[in-house]
Amino acid sequence: MTAEIIAVGTELLLGDILNTNAQFLSKELAQLGIGVYAQTVVGDNAGRLKDALNAALKRADIMILSGGLGPTDDDITKETAAEVFGQNLIFHQEIYDKILSRISKNAPETNKKQAYVPEDAYILTNDNGTAPGIVMEKDEKMLILLPGPPAELEPMFLNFCLPVLKQKTNCVIVSETIRLFGIGEAQVGETVRDLAVCDNPTVAPYVKNGDVTLRITARAESEAACAGLIAPAAEEIRSRFGDFVYGTGETDLKTKVVQYLIDNRLTVATAESCTAGMIAAAIGDIPGVSDIFCEGFVTYSNDAKEKNLGVPGKILKSFGAVSAETARAMAEGVCNRTNAKIGISATGIAGPGGGTKDKPVGLVYIGVCVDGETSVRKCELKGNRDRVRFMTVLNAFDELRKRLNISS
Amino acid sequence: MTAEIIAVGTELLLGDILNTNAQFLSKELAQLGIGVYAQTVVGDNAGRLKDALNAALKRADIMILSGGLGPTDDDITKETAAEVFGQNLIFHQEIYDKILSRISKNAPETNKKQAYVPEDAYILTNDNGTAPGIVMEKDEKMLILLPGPPAELEPMFLNFCLPVLKQKTNCVIVSETIRLFGIGEAQVGETVRDLAVCDNPTVAPYVKNGDVTLRITARAESEAACAGLIAPAAEEIRSRFGDFVYGTGETDLKTKVVQYLIDNRLTVATAESCTAGMIAAAIGDIPGVSDIFCEGFVTYSNDAKEKNLGVPGKILKSFGAVSAETARAMAEGVCNRTNAKIGISATGIAGPGGGTKDKPVGLVYIGVCVDGETSVRKCELKGNRDRVRFMTVLNAFDELRKRLNISS
Repeated sequence: MTAEIIAVGTELLLGDILNTNAQFLSKELAQLGIGVYAQTVVGDNAGRLKDALNAALKRADIMILSGGLGPTDDDITKETAAEVFGQNLIFHQEIYDKILSRISKNAPETNKKQAYVPEDAYILTNDNGTAPGIVMEKDEKMLILLPGPPAELEPMFLNFCLPVLKQKTNCVIVSETIRLFGIGEAQVGETVRDLAVCDNPTVAPYVKNGDVTLRITARAESEAACAGLIAPAAEEIRSRFGDFVYGTGETDLKTKVVQYLIDNRLTVATAESCTAGMIAAAIGDIPGVSDIFCEGFVTYSNDAKEKNLGVPGKILKSFGAVSAETARAMAEGVCNRTNAKIGISATGIAGPGGGTKDKPVGLVYIGVCVDGETSVRKCELKGNRDRVRFMTVLNAFDELRKRLNISS
Repeated sequence: MTAEIIAVGTELLLGDILNTNAQFLSKELAQLGIGVYAQTVVGDNAGRLKDALNAALKRADIMILSGGLGPTDDDITKETAAEVFGQNLIFHQEIYDKILSRISKNAPETNKKQAYVPEDAYILTNDNGTAPGIVMEKDEKMLILLPGPPAELEPMFLNFCLPVLKQKTNCVIVSETIRLFGIGEAQVGETVRDLAVCDNPTVAPYVKNGDVTLRITARAESEAACAGLIAPAAEEIRSRFGDFVYGTGETDLKTKVVQYLIDNRLTVATAESCTAGMIAAAIGDIPGVSDIFCEGFVTYSNDAKEKNLGVPGKILKSFGAVSAETARAMAEGVCNRTNAKIGISATGIAGPGGGTKDKPVGLVYIGVCVDGETSVRKCELKGNRDRVRFMTVLNAFDELRKRLNISS
């Protein structure tokens, strides 16, 4: 079974955006054992899209189109695909209601456009945007239309397309994801090189937002047979990476740690300098956190560190704001001020300026105080300001994971 | 004049690497006013590459191929292209000498492969790798072969292809971006529908992270002529969207507002409930902010609102934590506690749970206190928890933009 990927969007042809959807979809299809023989990008032009679609229909069994499902006139993917498949577009009230639930009530007529779908199409719900996904089948050919934004396309593909495609490929495919933190992709790749050459199960590293995940994918006649292929590989990987492994599946480091705090009713408070609220915001990302997260402090200035956290002026004077001693005093101070069981602090030099020879940009100290016992993690982070601050947040959660011995 | 980009490489079809070459080349060609009507990716397969090449030859004047120029047997771009253009490959000693100068002396015969080039080809020197670039012309069609690695392709294109292509074209392209907040993509599209049909300048809406941008793109013989085409369209758009327009170019709302605070040395402090530090973190994103941002508070609980911000208990009791009165008291309280000129507060119901009939999920109050004068923006936001909190942050910056009359 073969597939082709057609991305639609003049912004791609102008080079304004990178076609990450093609890579994502190709990787997923490869995992399914579906061969991709071509990726194409066409602009928001019905004639050229029709040509590309007809050419692909001659070659492949499955056509996946991304983009051009928006509400404006230059979005022509759905209309063109329906025409090629000889289907009319019909208005679906329930889709329109779902769209209205996402946008302001005084929505212009244009939004109605997204509620028209091909008469015989199978609809894919979009939980992250207004454009529904669409699946059409005709003469053994399958056409899948997905929205362009990766934040909408990726979950839609994983949640709705993957199961359908798995049925088409007449074998069971099972994946297990092992999640790592604190080790780079290159090193991970190196460590599993011998496993990566095996083609069943496949072992492929992915990198996303500072996390490295290893996905083990097995193909067999049954779930059980897949599990039998995956288990030894998973065990081997766990033994090779040890404490770098923090979890499995879709739960990322932040969610894993914060959910643990919620489940165990462990109160936490934050004291942030360089991250300026990012750790607090990350905790606040998780629903139900208000029971364990009462307050946090952003203390950029030394005055604020003294006034709001009770950091002794002499510590700031003798060791500086960016020091293990200050990180420790911030974490312990925020516990004292808030009576929280856990205090997390971060102080560092995010850059671009402000670095010195002794304290270069990327130097960050993270303090974690649990029941009065404080550990300080020193990080020498690479990258720009955003990267340094982002990795500081992940390191804070990783330090807390280790302090609380949260099992992977 | 039109061009097509064909990337060759099975690793692209497997999703192992991202096709950044297509974006780079498309951007460069757009600048030259050369329209790119298609980007294609094919594997290391002579038959399929020949088909893609012949299809492109029917449509475009210039074909740019990247990848497949390596020394191994699966590199077939040069051989296939030469066949399509009816040329023989001839061995060039000087190219081989250059290759040998880059690799270990005991080079295997395979490297000789890279020293064979089409008989009538124009050779592009590769200063960063062993594969030379190749230009062939036939019947008004130009075929450019470039090596796949960006580190080799990009300098080769800029140093050798750009001058050649500039001679071929006689026009330039200029774009201007107008940035909007507080209005949806659909409504924007509706408002500029009449302008969007014009093809020079073109007007196209894009959506990114809650921002809607309108890009005006003009094509003419000179920068000045482009500017002349863009100016009236830009003026028309500004007049239609009025205060929804917050800026132009690449600067987003947050950066625009925070940079204004830095440039004008306006001190700011934050008091956050539902956003739990996201506003503070967003301010902290901008380098140089430590001069104007000393401290912020995350006050999830009512106790924290009273203790850290001095919000009167009776306000919390009689109006509730999510109310205009509390937002106002938080913004004014944080100014009093920090002596900042500006106080920003946010309190709301991010969901998923916690909503009531009177105070549904998505209800958020934002307070902005400037020199003791406070305004409160009531938002009824759509979407999930992440979306509600993210849009709260943008609304806070938008409210501040309006309070400070920051010009667009």
